[in-house]
Amino acid sequence: MEGEICFLTLSQLSRLVRNRDVSPLEVTKAALARIDEVNPRVNAYITILEDTALKSARDAEKAIASGNYLGPLHGVPVALKDIFWIKGVRTTAGSRILADFVPRQDATVVKRLKESGAIFLGTLNLHEFAMSHTSDDSPYGVVRNPWDMERITGSSSSGPAAALAASLCFGSFGTDTGGSIRSPASLCGVVGFKPTYGRVSRHGVIPLSWSLDHIGPMARSVEDLAILFSIAAGPDRKDQRTSHIRAPDCSKGLAAGIKGLRLGLLREHFFERADGKVRETVCRAIKVLEELGATVEEVSIPHARYAYAIGAAIINAEAISYHEPYFNARPGDYGEEARARLEVGKVILAKDYLRAQRARTLLMREVQDVFQKVDILVTPTSPLTAPKIGQRMARVNGVVYKVRKITSLFTRPFNLTGNPAISVPCGFPSKGLPTGLQIVGKPFEDEKVLRVAYAYEASTPWHERRPPMLFS
Amino acid sequence: MEGEICFLTLSQLSRLVRNRDVSPLEVTKAALARIDEVNPRVNAYITILEDTALKSARDAEKAIASGNYLGPLHGVPVALKDIFWIKGVRTTAGSRILADFVPRQDATVVKRLKESGAIFLGTLNLHEFAMSHTSDDSPYGVVRNPWDMERITGSSSSGPAAALAASLCFGSFGTDTGGSIRSPASLCGVVGFKPTYGRVSRHGVIPLSWSLDHIGPMARSVEDLAILFSIAAGPDRKDQRTSHIRAPDCSKGLAAGIKGLRLGLLREHFFERADGKVRETVCRAIKVLEELGATVEEVSIPHARYAYAIGAAIINAEAISYHEPYFNARPGDYGEEARARLEVGKVILAKDYLRAQRARTLLMREVQDVFQKVDILVTPTSPLTAPKIGQRMARVNGVVYKVRKITSLFTRPFNLTGNPAISVPCGFPSKGLPTGLQIVGKPFEDEKVLRVAYAYEASTPWHERRPPMLFS
Repeated sequence: MEGEICFLTLSQLSRLVRNRDVSPLEVTKAALARIDEVNPRVNAYITILEDTALKSARDAEKAIASGNYLGPLHGVPVALKDIFWIKGVRTTAGSRILADFVPRQDATVVKRLKESGAIFLGTLNLHEFAMSHTSDDSPYGVVRNPWDMERITGSSSSGPAAALAASLCFGSFGTDTGGSIRSPASLCGVVGFKPTYGRVSRHGVIPLSWSLDHIGPMARSVEDLAILFSIAAGPDRKDQRTSHIRAPDCSKGLAAGIKGLRLGLLREHFFERADGKVRETVCRAIKVLEELGATVEEVSIPHARYAYAIGAAIINAEAISYHEPYFNARPGDYGEEARARLEVGKVILAKDYLRAQRARTLLMREVQDVFQKVDILVTPTSPLTAPKIGQRMARVNGVVYKVRKITSLFTRPFNLTGNPAISVPCGFPSKGLPTGLQIVGKPFEDEKVLRVAYAYEASTPWHERRPPMLFS
Repeated sequence: MEGEICFLTLSQLSRLVRNRDVSPLEVTKAALARIDEVNPRVNAYITILEDTALKSARDAEKAIASGNYLGPLHGVPVALKDIFWIKGVRTTAGSRILADFVPRQDATVVKRLKESGAIFLGTLNLHEFAMSHTSDDSPYGVVRNPWDMERITGSSSSGPAAALAASLCFGSFGTDTGGSIRSPASLCGVVGFKPTYGRVSRHGVIPLSWSLDHIGPMARSVEDLAILFSIAAGPDRKDQRTSHIRAPDCSKGLAAGIKGLRLGLLREHFFERADGKVRETVCRAIKVLEELGATVEEVSIPHARYAYAIGAAIINAEAISYHEPYFNARPGDYGEEARARLEVGKVILAKDYLRAQRARTLLMREVQDVFQKVDILVTPTSPLTAPKIGQRMARVNGVVYKVRKITSLFTRPFNLTGNPAISVPCGFPSKGLPTGLQIVGKPFEDEKVLRVAYAYEASTPWHERRPPMLFS
């Protein structure tokens, strides 16, 4: 039974808890036991909060037993990327710099999850400051991909992706500045959602790049994402960049279908740069959407090819602006890649930073124009399946790329534009490794993006497959 | 009669035109005759559009005669700062660089004014690219203050302020990046309004600093401002920074009074840095507002003292980002001050630009907090009355300032915060030179700011005084 509980999706578990078929204490104990057993192999957790989790579970159990049910997260064990402030729990951001940092208040997302009765199992590993692409020199060790323990999870929400794939928690939140939610979701066979810029408060989340950082949920099903998103999203006085527009309850319209929806397929830069087998897999997924009643036409965003360079200038400049006091005082406590990026950031001129922001505006206009013609854009999330740990270069369609560059090639454009974008597992192109379909919507049409992902997921068996390591 | 017509406010003229007591052709001829006579002394115009103005006047006359009245600007002669694109009319921005630039479309503000039936008399002088504080080396010559021809008008909307004070047009628009509407309005005894950031489209206006530039009306009465603002403001697809919030018709509620309104008086940095006589004059103005039913309490914005430095980093960096191609090709065609600022802008680091933007956020929070306690802030617009042409330094309360710095000391904080702010004439502290009361509101409460200014103006005779040069 214990193992079985841990494999449920958040929504499945939630229904059982609500009906008192499963007790919060029982599921929390099962999750902790499983973490104890499996985590040493995948290294998804940085901090495990056994005592507080058990206490929250008992509180939830009592509350629910006395008829005081708070909603779909009540009594459900979750764990977030170790970059969200949790009052009284050290928040490392995967760094040596913040190894002893203990926040005195909760991030807004944490506060909202707690108020909804969620149980915090611990904090999840990540690449240093969500900035580094490699985790070889991480003080908290390499996170392993549950589908193949010799492979990477993708960066930088490595812990959430691995924990969900290995059934070590039921829901999570990550941060996504260039693809850090969607890319690991795709490489680890889970779902990840970067909502519209300004939809989820960033208060209490250690920043990488203010103008590109997004907060979003990660989970094992689209229904789970909708629950997590609906609770976390919406106005927050503590983050000036959060939109005043109220977030809808996305769980309700999920099953409304996609008949008549116009999909735009991005061949240029996206499909054409993906590995052949990934391309085939994602094309099959789009065929499924067509069978469900959507129409497909080819569209183009010519400036997407510059998104990597534009993003790099913005991220490195904004990152050093935050890190400068730490970096000047303790440069040796940064890993090699973070240090290199911050050194570059230091000497970027304001005029070049502003030129990158202007180029970003061109990209935004192109995307706006494309959305005059279609409702949704579809692309592969990643050009390739998970590379090996330590692998620096990868060849795709005869072109050799740096691994750290290629994994965010298709995701980063939508950090620059702020559009909502989801990655949903869509098959196993080779060696039993998963890949994702990226679904992108108009700003503040987060609900529609979730609806398309749900329609796809409901009609395919992919999301029911589980990593082999779970059974070894 | 001709002279008399030119002295009317825009609203007064508008009523006469609507009732067909004055014909658009008659008033346009009077205005052109007056420009012919008076402009050589004040130098407010760069380009005079005699033929097209007369043609527009005839068209307006016919339309109104045939019952096709378009509204309060129909048949009313205006002129804008020479920085707004007018299709087919050279737009110099006060520079040598754009001396031959002829736009192929209208700025959004120009388009809306034309559609409202306004008649364009010509384009008005300004300081080079709205960037320079001095006009000694302007290719279009120094603009003189109609209240004392040996004195400056203030920068950079020098032409609009002088043209309105000398009755050479009935309404105008300027740009305000650090005070360029409010400061000359105050030194020339006219009204000037910087609306909330994002309220008026900047499409077709040559930029100085994207994140600080505001467009707003200048006129001889608050009622005039309300008419001009209501027509120009509101959403515009061509400027992404324009808010989607529709602008209200501010003319309607103008006379609703200010009973019970809570005014916040900013002593620190503002009143305490103003010349003694200016301070007395502005304090008397605030007494008038109290007599009208407002309450006054003292409040503070500690970061306002850093606004000048914060603004300088942002303006110089954003300016070079726009000017770089011109500046690299033709550095010698820039005046001394513009050249110096662009050279500084070239070497500003991204991290320092971003630090300035972060400091700006602190200032915004302070202003937000203050607006929890009060509805409106009141300050002097300028620390001193108009200095002499060529004067570099000015002593105020025993402290010696650069003239180019001091004139924007009280206005620039509200470019950084984006709040709506108006300057309304409130008396003559010394030597018959005017000064202004600055009234600042919450974001998107532009209407309330106009209402307070209107209440003050309606109860005082100051706005009826005219510069002595008009009678010499």
